[in-house]
Amino acid sequence: MRLLVANANTTEAITQACAAAARAAAAPGTEIIAATPRFGPAVISSRAENVIAGHALLELLAEHAGSVDAVLLAVSHDTALEGARQVMPCPVIGMTEAACLTACMLGGRFGMITFGGVEMYRELIARYGLDTRLADIIAVNATPPEAVADPDSVGNKVLVAAKALAAEGANSVVLAGAALAGFDNRLQEASPVALLDGMACGVRMAELLVSLGLPKPAAGSYAPPTGRSAAGISLPLAALLRGNA
Amino acid sequence: MRLLVANANTTEAITQACAAAARAAAAPGTEIIAATPRFGPAVISSRAENVIAGHALLELLAEHAGSVDAVLLAVSHDTALEGARQVMPCPVIGMTEAACLTACMLGGRFGMITFGGVEMYRELIARYGLDTRLADIIAVNATPPEAVADPDSVGNKVLVAAKALAAEGANSVVLAGAALAGFDNRLQEASPVALLDGMACGVRMAELLVSLGLPKPAAGSYAPPTGRSAAGISLPLAALLRGNA
Amino acid sequence: MRLLVANANTTEAITQACAAAARAAAAPGTEIIAATPRFGPAVISSRAENVIAGHALLELLAEHAGSVDAVLLAVSHDTALEGARQVMPCPVIGMTEAACLTACMLGGRFGMITFGGVEMYRELIARYGLDTRLADIIAVNATPPEAVADPDSVGNKVLVAAKALAAEGANSVVLAGAALAGFDNRLQEASPVALLDGMACGVRMAELLVSLGLPKPAAGSYAPPTGRSAAGISLPLAALLRGNA
Amino acid sequence: MRLLVANANTTEAITQACAAAARAAAAPGTEIIAATPRFGPAVISSRAENVIAGHALLELLAEHAGSVDAVLLAVSHDTALEGARQVMPCPVIGMTEAACLTACMLGGRFGMITFGGVEMYRELIARYGLDTRLADIIAVNATPPEAVADPDSVGNKVLVAAKALAAEGANSVVLAGAALAGFDNRLQEASPVALLDGMACGVRMAELLVSLGLPKPAAGSYAPPTGRSAAGISLPLAALLRGNA
Amino acid sequence: MRLLVANANTTEAITQACAAAARAAAAPGTEIIAATPRFGPAVISSRAENVIAGHALLELLAEHAGSVDAVLLAVSHDTALEGARQVMPCPVIGMTEAACLTACMLGGRFGMITFGGVEMYRELIARYGLDTRLADIIAVNATPPEAVADPDSVGNKVLVAAKALAAEGANSVVLAGAALAGFDNRLQEASPVALLDGMACGVRMAELLVSLGLPKPAAGSYAPPTGRSAAGISLPLAALLRGNA
Amino acid sequence: MRLLVANANTTEAITQACAAAARAAAAPGTEIIAATPRFGPAVISSRAENVIAGHALLELLAEHAGSVDAVLLAVSHDTALEGARQVMPCPVIGMTEAACLTACMLGGRFGMITFGGVEMYRELIARYGLDTRLADIIAVNATPPEAVADPDSVGNKVLVAAKALAAEGANSVVLAGAALAGFDNRLQEASPVALLDGMACGVRMAELLVSLGLPKPAAGSYAPPTGRSAAGISLPLAALLRGNA
Repeated sequence: MRLLVANANTTEAITQACAAAARAAAAPGTEIIAATPRFGPAVISSRAENVIAGHALLELLAEHAGSVDAVLLAVSHDTALEGARQVMPCPVIGMTEAACLTACMLGGRFGMITFGGVEMYRELIARYGLDTRLADIIAVNATPPEAVADPDSVGNKVLVAAKALAAEGANSVVLAGAALAGFDNRLQEASPVALLDGMACGVRMAELLVSLGLPKPAAGSYAPPTGRSAAGISLPLAALLRGNA
Repeated sequence: MRLLVANANTTEAITQACAAAARAAAAPGTEIIAATPRFGPAVISSRAENVIAGHALLELLAEHAGSVDAVLLAVSHDTALEGARQVMPCPVIGMTEAACLTACMLGGRFGMITFGGVEMYRELIARYGLDTRLADIIAVNATPPEAVADPDSVGNKVLVAAKALAAEGANSVVLAGAALAGFDNRLQEASPVALLDGMACGVRMAELLVSLGLPKPAAGSYAPPTGRSAAGISLPLAALLRGNA
Repeated sequence: MRLLVANANTTEAITQACAAAARAAAAPGTEIIAATPRFGPAVISSRAENVIAGHALLELLAEHAGSVDAVLLAVSHDTALEGARQVMPCPVIGMTEAACLTACMLGGRFGMITFGGVEMYRELIARYGLDTRLADIIAVNATPPEAVADPDSVGNKVLVAAKALAAEGANSVVLAGAALAGFDNRLQEASPVALLDGMACGVRMAELLVSLGLPKPAAGSYAPPTGRSAAGISLPLAALLRGNA
Repeated sequence: MRLLVANANTTEAITQACAAAARAAAAPGTEIIAATPRFGPAVISSRAENVIAGHALLELLAEHAGSVDAVLLAVSHDTALEGARQVMPCPVIGMTEAACLTACMLGGRFGMITFGGVEMYRELIARYGLDTRLADIIAVNATPPEAVADPDSVGNKVLVAAKALAAEGANSVVLAGAALAGFDNRLQEASPVALLDGMACGVRMAELLVSLGLPKPAAGSYAPPTGRSAAGISLPLAALLRGNA
Repeated sequence: MRLLVANANTTEAITQACAAAARAAAAPGTEIIAATPRFGPAVISSRAENVIAGHALLELLAEHAGSVDAVLLAVSHDTALEGARQVMPCPVIGMTEAACLTACMLGGRFGMITFGGVEMYRELIARYGLDTRLADIIAVNATPPEAVADPDSVGNKVLVAAKALAAEGANSVVLAGAALAGFDNRLQEASPVALLDGMACGVRMAELLVSLGLPKPAAGSYAPPTGRSAAGISLPLAALLRGNA
Repeated sequence: MRLLVANANTTEAITQACAAAARAAAAPGTEIIAATPRFGPAVISSRAENVIAGHALLELLAEHAGSVDAVLLAVSHDTALEGARQVMPCPVIGMTEAACLTACMLGGRFGMITFGGVEMYRELIARYGLDTRLADIIAVNATPPEAVADPDSVGNKVLVAAKALAAEGANSVVLAGAALAGFDNRLQEASPVALLDGMACGVRMAELLVSLGLPKPAAGSYAPPTGRSAAGISLPLAALLRGNA
């Protein structure tokens, strides 16, 4: 199967890092196609950037409609997930959604660790209806660049947070944010509970959905659009809205 | 005060209708500036269109940053409300949000009437945390064009729905969707409960926020962005993201 | 318009302070009529006092039924709000309700600061269905008299609480309690998030509702009573219950 | 033990009917003292009447403070329950609260049948935090006088409602409203699920609380008031607020 | 009446201690029959043990079906409560359920103190739909054997926890776990809020249900089974499943 | 990988049918080991049977501890899922849990169709914290034997239910109950939304968890038991409780 790993920001290095993580997680036979939006934020760390990136992401996805079997949104805010899911002819997964649902299958409540944006993640989890499964979210006092420059020091902070979440009742911990990729493997042994990486969970969830071969809905708010028109958008996205992609 | 009435779709006629409704509702001294996005859907009736329109709306708002005192989103999906609220230096109101909060002040639970999109509105109200205040949502079996062509017939359907919602316990009814504008006045006398129009509520809520003169937050997820960079977006929006609008 | 600012306790000085705050917040053309109940608690700080004050308040309001355009309950417990809303022929607003709904329009979650009574305020917010919008409530370690005697010291405690609430994710803070009136202006500049005063929000919300000119419900639990009889209550309130006020 | 059965309206006949029901339900050794408020609504069927009755009820209870071992509020709205609970030196039970908690011990969800006031009962159950235990509320199309005049016909309607609630998933049904007293015995055999009468449940719950001999809280919002002053209220109630009853 | 006090673990000493507590709490005329399962965990402190004990408990109860008037589950996890309630021809009460419902009648929110298992108790309370009534759960840093060996030291820890819960807003505190039996009496005077013991509450609730004489449901998920067959279970339990016990 | 498909009832034919469905859904390389409990209900259709089956299931699983890579509970009630998850050294999945989480990844709300037991399924979904994702549950008026004898007629009823659920807002439908196995394929084309089969979803979810290689928690309520003793249970289960399986 062909899996589109779609970054939602315009930083190519992040796209490549996500693609590498996806390839490491993928089953044999899963081909990873990585893609970066044509426009939008360099990094998404605020509500407004997330809105802009949503449009950029849809344009990016539309270019691949019909040529990929599934899409994994390689952005921890699961940017534009609902819109992408409606408009694409294949399954679409959000990496944080995938990690949270995986956490559910480990039982009990899960915690989340981020570099910030706690309220945005809290709202995201509430939108998924999973708020009663969430123990807490902890933002470690560090920045993504620091995670790259000094992974030992930042890793220690993440581990302290994971232990604190476990003490609050979390039975697993979702690492949210591209800059935390790889910390699951690095810290797993020292952590009292499982650490979940969105890319790894997301790739596997995408494979699962493809294997199930479920049809798109023919009715309701996730049915693909038909006959819609829009000005000033890319031809492929316009074609999807018209329903003749 | 200067109030920007910002349509989120590209249909100029809808913008003008909304502006007229806003002017009818506004207090003396409130100047209505109407604006239409440069790109995006002709009409928003799906998840994907709502995502595209979000970006278009932010670009539109950015052009008016600093020159208006408040913004009213003239779109019943309250498109990109959170992002707009963060990035603009003035209050931003969603018309459906405004109607729902007004309904709260009438006491009890409220109902909602639309031409479709029930699930999207249900999710919107849940995001506002108002789900326990919602009695029900009814989609009348009619289309916006029919509302224009045969307002008596459609009005009758709306009235039937309003009575049904009152029977379910609704103490007021929000009319959601631009095509329902004006039906509140037309049907109010025959309705057992108050009918709420988002434009009327929204204009007044915008005036209220301006009169209160509250500061923007200096911290948290609604603090204006600074130092953010993005490619391929309009200069005014880029300036807002950099923090030097 | 004529706005009745109705205290629910019998301390005339508090009524006058609230009236002054209301006048400071009101739009030109809004006349503030202040009123104090004939009987009841000197100050409301407990569940039982709140019950007694509810009856006193309804008697007070009934005297003004028909001669005012709206009512603002100048009591942070929003005493007897639902009953007042049902029985009066005009809009009725609670000052804490107004502040909480205003906070909603700033986005995200809000915090609350009081001099005590945390559980009662928590229940009040839950009754409004706004519990998921509430970040936390902090009771500062001070008394209303201390707030008058040493506003600098108490102000400092309030500011510490506001910063703590912002750190917990609150995007705005409601000051609950008459003794906190004016602290919003005093502390706003130093606070990381907007401070909301119930009187200011309430006056503006009352003006909004009057401007919208919504009808009273003809059915349901907020429809004005008719044909009800009660012994030992004031003539004006009895008239309202009979439905011929 | 001495159990005060306190009506909240001023209709002596209802007080006597409730007292009779209480005596029928009471254990040997439980003495029923029935009491009627000095003022207030003849019957409580609206929000405003409920507020007035709250004050009347507290005055009534205060007369018996110290001379009874427990109080059962003989009013299906559980009028002023929280305030009464705080101010009285003994346990206070609401008849609808008692029936709902008894229903919980039968397992699953419960339904409710009333002669109206559905929204007020829904709010009451939500205040008790029991909304997820509630299957539905059905208001039968009949009036309390009809229940007295033609109990067979009304009983049939109640039975139809009970069956409908069972079909919706209710494992028991609470009969709310004094006019439904006795219908539990009359209809129990024909009903698919248990019918719960508030007076019977309430008397037994009051006996239970007395037998447990739990202390009043020394802190928090249910701790008895001390040092509070109020004007124009009865001497016994004023004494309770001062804390020297 | 004959009340079966059914332990769910196989430690006879705990059965006897529970029976003694039940006898101390029971009304005159209530005969306590104590029983211990034939198989299962020595003590239940984990999810898996709770599952095994559920079956053992049903077998135990089935032996007494028809010969007792009610059952009190003497296990703080309320093991197999729903199944026992369905299958037995008499009322079945869980000791923690009983304590939580009693706490509700004291008003406000309650706290809980345990020796561990916080997440399991949190889930139990959520299953009862009482999560909004729960202030918090605190696990004291002690073990059941320590509670026996050094009740003064452990009692002190319990008291510290009770005070902390009261400070968080709890108006009463449920002591969960057999090893905390008796600490309610020991610590009540020093505690700011009422301490609730599950055995005492449970015995009284069982008496209450028996006195009400409610019928078993004839429909729904709590209706007694009929015509069900199972292999390898005890004859009495098999008879209950067949419906001819 | 070796996947244990564990029936929870004792009907070998159902075990074989589930195993066949699992093999049809499994990826190459997944070996299906089917197993039937030694004792317990022939079919689980009530609360009490579910309790008994829980113990039987744990005994069954314990026999395979260490020799399988994952467990799929082939019972639509997800019997004893939490306990099994704790005690087994490998991932454990419930078939209904798997279908519900898969439904979440299709977006929006899901519906459920069963042959009965609506309240038990509603409680199960609430325990998973997914109640806000659930549109409704419909029990078709048919029995499992009828589904085998006349699949066309029963299929038609299922299809009617699926369309009704879609009209209520469901974006997908979970088929709950072994007797509905295969109806997803039979009806998918005629259904407006995706039909989800628990066995298919569960097999894939089990493969996913195995591929992720997550560790068992070292702390909390899902940490494997150690040092626990129990009487009268099988040696393998006793070994698991002791922690030396």
